[in-house]
Amino acid sequence: MNIVLLDRADWVAEGVVRLQDRRAEHISIVLKARVGDSLRVGELGGLRGQGVIEAMVDHEGVRMRVTLSAPPPPRHRFDIVLALPRPKTLRRLLRQCAEFGIADLHLIHSARVEKSYWQSPLLQPTQLQESLLAGLERSRDTVAPRIHLHRRFRPFVEDQLPLLCAKRPCWLADWEAPMALADAMPQPAVVMIGPEGGFVPYEIERAESVGARRVGLGSRCLSVDTALVSVLAHGVS
Amino acid sequence: MNIVLLDRADWVAEGVVRLQDRRAEHISIVLKARVGDSLRVGELGGLRGQGVIEAMVDHEGVRMRVTLSAPPPPRHRFDIVLALPRPKTLRRLLRQCAEFGIADLHLIHSARVEKSYWQSPLLQPTQLQESLLAGLERSRDTVAPRIHLHRRFRPFVEDQLPLLCAKRPCWLADWEAPMALADAMPQPAVVMIGPEGGFVPYEIERAESVGARRVGLGSRCLSVDTALVSVLAHGVS
Repeated sequence: MNIVLLDRADWVAEGVVRLQDRRAEHISIVLKARVGDSLRVGELGGLRGQGVIEAMVDHEGVRMRVTLSAPPPPRHRFDIVLALPRPKTLRRLLRQCAEFGIADLHLIHSARVEKSYWQSPLLQPTQLQESLLAGLERSRDTVAPRIHLHRRFRPFVEDQLPLLCAKRPCWLADWEAPMALADAMPQPAVVMIGPEGGFVPYEIERAESVGARRVGLGSRCLSVDTALVSVLAHGVS
Repeated sequence: MNIVLLDRADWVAEGVVRLQDRRAEHISIVLKARVGDSLRVGELGGLRGQGVIEAMVDHEGVRMRVTLSAPPPPRHRFDIVLALPRPKTLRRLLRQCAEFGIADLHLIHSARVEKSYWQSPLLQPTQLQESLLAGLERSRDTVAPRIHLHRRFRPFVEDQLPLLCAKRPCWLADWEAPMALADAMPQPAVVMIGPEGGFVPYEIERAESVGARRVGLGSRCLSVDTALVSVLAHGVS
């Protein structure tokens, strides 16, 4: 936890918060902080700053006086369209998207996505939020990626993708593509990443028909989790 | 499984293999292959080629006539020195190192590595091999990374690191470094990645004293798993 993220409910007075959950535990047990210590804090969705510990009592938690002044770090230049991964992997990929600070993550259906994945409790807002918070806490960010769920491939690609890509290129990661993402212009873009086994040819055609272009990530076929982080690493400015 | 990897024990005659384990199951159930079908195969540590299914009988497995002619894909240009991650994460990181085709992975101790991690059964050769195979099968490679275990930081850095880096730079990933890995010359190198929380200052000093130089991966602090794949993505040619 490289930043203590604060929610509206934490404020107990002007400029003062009280934490009683895992954050209080982390501050006391892992960080071994004491009264008077200053910690990096941030308001979820808002500014970052410092919190000075005013009191720490076991059953009352941690009280801090907070000063917020710095904006959150800039967003990643890619928005991601990702075929819904298996639930076990999803939690980690959400965390990694939050680490990189992507603004919008579109989780979409695709022929090779098992329909049962859409039933996962991990897609509930509170669970999504939990995975994202783990990433923000790592990278000292306060702004979580917005998650959009699209349970049907074709309406997403035909109706929404063209709007998303109105003023920026849309890349579709395909390891056999003739052009490498690393050679693309370093500009904002939407990047589509398929499921394990890739998008099926029909899906690639549909995406290309609305302007997507295939790009490779090197000469090797990579797993989805490896491909996602590779894409995000290329998009870091 | 994008390639069926063959071991010495699989050969039953000149140019003929018989598979009876999870590979036979995968060929029959996932790939839905039939007699006469041709599959991508490779000899572990050796050549790649095609296997034509000659027979498939439930209790006898899959018999294939194999022709091997193509070399394995080239190695990644980075060798990696990684502080031993927690066992749960290790298995995945091994798979990802194999996907990228790195030649040598050095797992080292570091102040922020829990000593208990060194007791993990995942460090047994057969278990290491299993994780690596999953990566090779994904990226159609036949050559697994060589894994080297170094249970003491200082002897590794003082005695072995200088030899490893004799003819190539040694980068140490540190998100606060003034220089970015992306701006380094695209040449072979050794890259060191610390544990969650990073190497401690003493360790960075020791590494720098034998020639390591700090490089960043962008403006954000990343988790170890994200940092490793980011490093490897930058090193793809």
